[in-house]
Amino acid sequence: MIKATIVIRLKSSVVDPQGHAVKGSLHSLGFEEVQDVRIGKMIEVWLESADLEAAKVKVEAMCKQLLANPVIENYEYQLEEEA
Amino acid sequence: MIKATIVIRLKSSVVDPQGHAVKGSLHSLGFEEVQDVRIGKMIEVWLESADLEAAKVKVEAMCKQLLANPVIENYEYQLEEEA
Repeated sequence: MIKATIVIRLKSSVVDPQGHAVKGSLHSLGFEEVQDVRIGKMIEVWLESADLEAAKVKVEAMCKQLLANPVIENYEYQLEEEA
Repeated sequence: MIKATIVIRLKSSVVDPQGHAVKGSLHSLGFEEVQDVRIGKMIEVWLESADLEAAKVKVEAMCKQLLANPVIENYEYQLEEEA
């Protein structure tokens, strides 16, 4: 079994209203030192695959077809073999 | 400036309906090899802090007070100094 840990972030040019709201909440809780907050997604996918190379091809396709919106998001991932 | 990268996951005992839905979508796109999907949050926080130790105390408090729901979620984080 292979585990893919995929991190999906808004592109830096894209405004992050959710991050902005969390920043406001942190300030109201007294965390004035917070300068900026950006929120992303972390998706863990477990898949059966012959090897890491084959898994890479599949994960890349999953990101492009479903998991990440290429217009506003970037993605990166790590693959690891799990017993 | 210090950057905290915080990853928040549902506890493994907690059902993940969002992950289940994504798994179904991946299967319908032909990714039959997918066995499981779990969705989490990745929150990046930039904060002014004297040093990493002081930042750690603040980030721990932010997670406990706002960012993570201790009943159903676990959190972990990495701190790095940014120019």
